[in-house]
Amino acid sequence: MDDSTIFIGRKPSINYVLAVITQFNSGAEQVSLKARGRSISKAVDVAEIVRNKYVTDLKVESIQIGTVNLPDEERIEGINVSWIDIVLVKGTVDGTASSGDE
Amino acid sequence: MDDSTIFIGRKPSINYVLAVITQFNSGAEQVSLKARGRSISKAVDVAEIVRNKYVTDLKVESIQIGTVNLPDEERIEGINVSWIDIVLVKGTVDGTASSGDE
Repeated sequence: MDDSTIFIGRKPSINYVLAVITQFNSGAEQVSLKARGRSISKAVDVAEIVRNKYVTDLKVESIQIGTVNLPDEERIEGINVSWIDIVLVKGTVDGTASSGDE
Repeated sequence: MDDSTIFIGRKPSINYVLAVITQFNSGAEQVSLKARGRSISKAVDVAEIVRNKYVTDLKVESIQIGTVNLPDEERIEGINVSWIDIVLVKGTVDGTASSGDE
């Protein structure tokens, strides 16, 4: 299975939306969106914009969250930063998709 | 089953961390963290802080994302805002938990 990972950072959301669309249009069956810290909200936005507006046969395959400890100049114990990993897959949307509208 | 919902907003993360701990200490088996827009990152932080530091037998039961259309004064079509719903449950942590450390 083709798959692909896109790291969500400080660029505008639309850049990442285009990157996800490009991956699917290039034959990827699955795209993983990874983000840390404040970019987590943007990763959810990107997933939702792609699903709702551009590639409407996607479903959310899985969403994982966790914590990574990063080195920090001022704190010997480092800093803990949350991360998210949203996996989108191509396929018919069914009732078991882990995402929906309120 | 006792359950509870906490809406994550603009207060400091620690306020919500305390709210979640209080719910579990009051007998809740399950707590749902809901957030919209930029607060989504904070919801993930709160879930991770509670799990890693305070209530270490929690697991992430489910994570859902979606979009809600909210009225907006300047746009007749409203604005689309992403949301997240993270459900934490008490119980022994096992290998199937949908969250982990990198």
